Amino acid sequence: MILKKIGVLVLVLISILSSAQHRKNLYIPDIQGYQTLKCDFHIHTVFSDGDVWPTVRVEEAWLEGLDAIAISDHIEYTPHSADINADFNRSYEIAQPVAESLGVLLIKAAEITRNMPPGHLNTLFIKNANLLERENYMDALVEAKEQGAFIFWNHPGWEEQQPDTTLWWDEHTELFNKGMLHGIEVVNHFSYYPEALGWANEKGLAVLCNSDVHTPVNMVYDLVGSHRPMTLVFAKQKSMESLKEALFAKRTVAYIGNKLYGSSQYMQPLFFNSIKIVGLPVQLQNRKVASVMIKNISDIDYELELVQPPVGFECAENVVLKAHHSTRIELTGNSDEVANMEELLVYYTVKNITTAPGENLVVTLKIHNK
Amino acid sequence: MILKKIGVLVLVLISILSSAQHRKNLYIPDIQGYQTLKCDFHIHTVFSDGDVWPTVRVEEAWLEGLDAIAISDHIEYTPHSADINADFNRSYEIAQPVAESLGVLLIKAAEITRNMPPGHLNTLFIKNANLLERENYMDALVEAKEQGAFIFWNHPGWEEQQPDTTLWWDEHTELFNKGMLHGIEVVNHFSYYPEALGWANEKGLAVLCNSDVHTPVNMVYDLVGSHRPMTLVFAKQKSMESLKEALFAKRTVAYIGNKLYGSSQYMQPLFFNSIKIVGLPVQLQNRKVASVMIKNISDIDYELELVQPPVGFECAENVVLKAHHSTRIELTGNSDEVANMEELLVYYTVKNITTAPGENLVVTLKIHNK
Amino acid sequence: MILKKIGVLVLVLISILSSAQHRKNLYIPDIQGYQTLKCDFHIHTVFSDGDVWPTVRVEEAWLEGLDAIAISDHIEYTPHSADINADFNRSYEIAQPVAESLGVLLIKAAEITRNMPPGHLNTLFIKNANLLERENYMDALVEAKEQGAFIFWNHPGWEEQQPDTTLWWDEHTELFNKGMLHGIEVVNHFSYYPEALGWANEKGLAVLCNSDVHTPVNMVYDLVGSHRPMTLVFAKQKSMESLKEALFAKRTVAYIGNKLYGSSQYMQPLFFNSIKIVGLPVQLQNRKVASVMIKNISDIDYELELVQPPVGFECAENVVLKAHHSTRIELTGNSDEVANMEELLVYYTVKNITTAPGENLVVTLKIHNK
Amino acid sequence: MILKKIGVLVLVLISILSSAQHRKNLYIPDIQGYQTLKCDFHIHTVFSDGDVWPTVRVEEAWLEGLDAIAISDHIEYTPHSADINADFNRSYEIAQPVAESLGVLLIKAAEITRNMPPGHLNTLFIKNANLLERENYMDALVEAKEQGAFIFWNHPGWEEQQPDTTLWWDEHTELFNKGMLHGIEVVNHFSYYPEALGWANEKGLAVLCNSDVHTPVNMVYDLVGSHRPMTLVFAKQKSMESLKEALFAKRTVAYIGNKLYGSSQYMQPLFFNSIKIVGLPVQLQNRKVASVMIKNISDIDYELELVQPPVGFECAENVVLKAHHSTRIELTGNSDEVANMEELLVYYTVKNITTAPGENLVVTLKIHNK
Repeated sequence: MILKKIGVLVLVLISILSSAQHRKNLYIPDIQGYQTLKCDFHIHTVFSDGDVWPTVRVEEAWLEGLDAIAISDHIEYTPHSADINADFNRSYEIAQPVAESLGVLLIKAAEITRNMPPGHLNTLFIKNANLLERENYMDALVEAKEQGAFIFWNHPGWEEQQPDTTLWWDEHTELFNKGMLHGIEVVNHFSYYPEALGWANEKGLAVLCNSDVHTPVNMVYDLVGSHRPMTLVFAKQKSMESLKEALFAKRTVAYIGNKLYGSSQYMQPLFFNSIKIVGLPVQLQNRKVASVMIKNISDIDYELELVQPPVGFECAENVVLKAHHSTRIELTGNSDEVANMEELLVYYTVKNITTAPGENLVVTLKIHNK
Repeated sequence: MILKKIGVLVLVLISILSSAQHRKNLYIPDIQGYQTLKCDFHIHTVFSDGDVWPTVRVEEAWLEGLDAIAISDHIEYTPHSADINADFNRSYEIAQPVAESLGVLLIKAAEITRNMPPGHLNTLFIKNANLLERENYMDALVEAKEQGAFIFWNHPGWEEQQPDTTLWWDEHTELFNKGMLHGIEVVNHFSYYPEALGWANEKGLAVLCNSDVHTPVNMVYDLVGSHRPMTLVFAKQKSMESLKEALFAKRTVAYIGNKLYGSSQYMQPLFFNSIKIVGLPVQLQNRKVASVMIKNISDIDYELELVQPPVGFECAENVVLKAHHSTRIELTGNSDEVANMEELLVYYTVKNITTAPGENLVVTLKIHNK
Repeated sequence: MILKKIGVLVLVLISILSSAQHRKNLYIPDIQGYQTLKCDFHIHTVFSDGDVWPTVRVEEAWLEGLDAIAISDHIEYTPHSADINADFNRSYEIAQPVAESLGVLLIKAAEITRNMPPGHLNTLFIKNANLLERENYMDALVEAKEQGAFIFWNHPGWEEQQPDTTLWWDEHTELFNKGMLHGIEVVNHFSYYPEALGWANEKGLAVLCNSDVHTPVNMVYDLVGSHRPMTLVFAKQKSMESLKEALFAKRTVAYIGNKLYGSSQYMQPLFFNSIKIVGLPVQLQNRKVASVMIKNISDIDYELELVQPPVGFECAENVVLKAHHSTRIELTGNSDEVANMEELLVYYTVKNITTAPGENLVVTLKIHNK
Repeated sequence: MILKKIGVLVLVLISILSSAQHRKNLYIPDIQGYQTLKCDFHIHTVFSDGDVWPTVRVEEAWLEGLDAIAISDHIEYTPHSADINADFNRSYEIAQPVAESLGVLLIKAAEITRNMPPGHLNTLFIKNANLLERENYMDALVEAKEQGAFIFWNHPGWEEQQPDTTLWWDEHTELFNKGMLHGIEVVNHFSYYPEALGWANEKGLAVLCNSDVHTPVNMVYDLVGSHRPMTLVFAKQKSMESLKEALFAKRTVAYIGNKLYGSSQYMQPLFFNSIKIVGLPVQLQNRKVASVMIKNISDIDYELELVQPPVGFECAENVVLKAHHSTRIELTGNSDEVANMEELLVYYTVKNITTAPGENLVVTLKIHNK
């Protein structure tokens, strides 16, 4: 039997080495002295209704370049219980050593899974998930709060629970008033809920964007060509403590596909730290064409649209600042004064950054002229 | 609670729809009146030492275009048994309804997992895996045989068991003589065992090529750019019965990356059914250049190398018939007789098709000349 | 000097071999006994305002899998004339031997380049381009007609010539009535002109879709991930004569990106020859779920949307039949009669196939039920 | 006719905007206070035996992220001269305004094209290419030298000129001694000449790596998945003057595919500026496993192989530091002393960096331990 055990050990070591060797670099800039942590706070395993062993969740996150995840298995819904016999802390316990070894921050979490209202709520940074199994949802959330949890409302507009409208219920007001609702999923899987972004802005809730993944991640999001939905958290450093502080301080934005949702307070520096204007000064003159190059060092394509015609010159109405490329923008002088301007100002909306329902980030490119 | 159950039902339906919608077409030609089934007969789940729920194995196979799989969880090695409490038939039972619904042939199987000799052996088409749990490996294999199993030796040169050499033991001779060894893995995961190909040819064992996957498939084999190792089985039709008949008849070859291993009896038609020579007749003359186009409609790049200079003309020494492309080959006449030849003959070895250790398939291209 | 000439010869031979070896297979089905030729009839070289030598146009077409091209250098616009001193037949003469050798049909052509009206017109199958250099455009077109030309109107809605509207002028009526206008570009480069599709349907003009490429093709259309705009021509065989007959018979449709424009007469068989329904009969019953698989063997993703709810069952409202994949569609019985139906009928519009301005192809999937 | 001219102007402006908008960022680090310029010094156009108009060469270079190119049309070989009537400075004159506008450094150059010896030589930074057309090659090179040219030997082992061996001739010694040979192509197109690397090291010649491209670049090198061969030049800044200074100072290395050739003096900082070791200190102990992460921010995959077993611990024999990924390396303590080591030292050869024929760069990874 000793031989067999050695075999086992070897198998496990090989598995870690072969499946988790190359971690993708994500190029999302840090801002304002904060480190931008790439996170997914809503993930399932076989210990509730997911399809993979908990360690896979850590390995996937590591491979994809994520900094932190929460495994949030359902408390009230465990369809594999005929075969899997474990308490609600178990998926965390299994995944934690691999997280430790790979340097991924693994948050202890659980999903409280109820009919609407209040629907599904994730509790992060809990200490004992078993204590959240309560008849009454309010008792469960009080317990979570006492454990110091960061609590957020999942997929508020999920069509199974709110098929026609996305409503905020009195129960959510009560939770919010009692300090038991700190964030809301503005994006879950492939769905964006504009109402949720409005409430986040209005009430000061943290904006969350999570995968809610049940299958292997790559079955849904291709590692090469796309990325899973992520919550970007602006933390003082990469540590559990800093992450928690940042979440309670609501320093987050949503990142899905090529779209970003959240406050312009974070979007402005995220945009400007992604780009660099080169080829200055342009020395534009009337009836002449000059050009400027905007180098984008991030993974995000920024889709710009002119807000209003610039003064003294013309430039492209629509520009895409393609990720990891430098984009050339031509400027054509249309007045004599342009030669004397210190700076040329161009006002663009960034169509892939939404700061409020129906509103896009507006940025001002200041182009050094002479 | 009824509401909750409905929620559950909906969750499950959504999961099947969203994760298994587009199945990749594999372009591997049928041969000689047989249908070419794409199969993987060595796969693990959380019910032994794998990382995914059994249903994932079926969904992955469906997405990748496979026709048949065997989930072959270990009998003697179940490291998740502290959490998972189930008998050895359970992974099959869970996966079978999804296989039924997606049209994937799911073979009931198990891996007998012993020290060398005889090492690890997969038993396919068994009826009750629980009866294979025996102190003595021979008892287990006798039981498998009585259940009608197709039995093959896994990763015969696995470095954990045969670090320096790949040896055939007396125990394997005994199994073979007793009709309890029908095939051998010539390829397991990324490893090719030339000795195993030699034994397969010599003793008439079926050539097997399997993934032995433990993690989600896409964590190892990228869906887009590569494919998992497959055993190609030439079956009378796509049914469990035909598959079994074909395996016992040893009508198989190994397919990994762009390489194929197995008998020229199957490789010849596989090659010639993949290509079509167009642009005929070429009407080649001395000191003239003519060209022929070879259209490859398969997923396989064929890498050709000239065996000997052709008679009457010259042509490229190395040619790759790229998958899903048509390749142009130039012929240059170097004798007056060439104009009178009915057919131009070119002898190529196919470097990515191995028919015996160190031997490649040789094909004769017959180019209609006049 | 002899040595130098040999050096030259060698250079040229190497160049053809290395740059034109693997031709992409395009998977666009043939229809109704016709061969579907993939064509581009609007292409420039350095002999007018293009950027490449004529031979490159043939090599690019060959690599991309095109069957026929027309090099249509401008008659009235030759900005490189300070350096290039040649008549209007020259680009054809240079390219023709390479076309011959690679088996690409090269149509002798020219672009008559005038202000609006009548704008730019391409003349195909001409005999002598030099005779088209005339002060008056009508004289040039009369000459082209006498040479047997197929004449079509290029980019009718080009913003440089018709910035605000896309108008049909009296001059076009005159040309049409005189038999000097046989086709119209419904797509030029990246632009689709709905008015042109309307006129083509109304007046019986051939639908054309061309690249109008000036730079190397790959600088605009990536060989791997996309394809240049193509006119699909349904010809009796791949020959210059058949191509000409098919064009005058107006058997064409436009193919750009994943979109197709043209008559449902050709779109219906194109769609149905691209797919194969498998897994029949489905044997659907009330309150049961059955599924059907639609295998798409073409390069085109078909984007389906339900026209109306089917009778007796429900099925997905939106389905993409992904290229080179098999797509699974679930059917849910909602009446007792469904079990007795011989065929289940599903009416879908194909959103990426436009048959008239604002109108999509409608197809009826007939699913064998029992 | 004024209208037509306006049309022309518009056509040209559109062409620049549409074909040259997104320039790829190349991630090759700067070193030692120098800027790493990405260059190709051997390129042809229709003005000698190339296939594209000179402006295309600048646009291609810009799109691919190159900093500098030399268009080096042949003096003695102009196969398009029946159609193109221009002097040897013409391709430069045509390309220069586009280079100016796009910010690409365009070097005036020409290729002196002779039988062996001395074969083909490129002359960069010349003032008047017409003066290089001389009966005697020595006269041409003297003229080039007087114009201040940087002169290098092209494809020294080209099989057309040196089919069996790559020899250094007396004529090259003469040129070298007279200060008329400053560099040598160690790589031309897809060919690497080890002898040339030896001579470069021995005699202090600049290492060159050029495409010698005749067709459109993307017909040979796919923009997305690969890059053309480049000479990396370590210049004080991006200017013509600095580039020239750096070339004469021989601060160059060759970069083709994933391989680099050149002096370890530049390779050492190139390697170490590409990577960052994170997760320190590792605090390794006997019989324990610790891990270190190496983040590679460059486009280059570094392929490492252990030179000798480390002292006090074991680590992976073969490691690939994948471009734009972070690679995890496990260290296993095998002595008690390891816990007391300040630094753990690992000696790797970098198999894709060649510093002399048959010799690879050796790097020492210093891993902070406690």
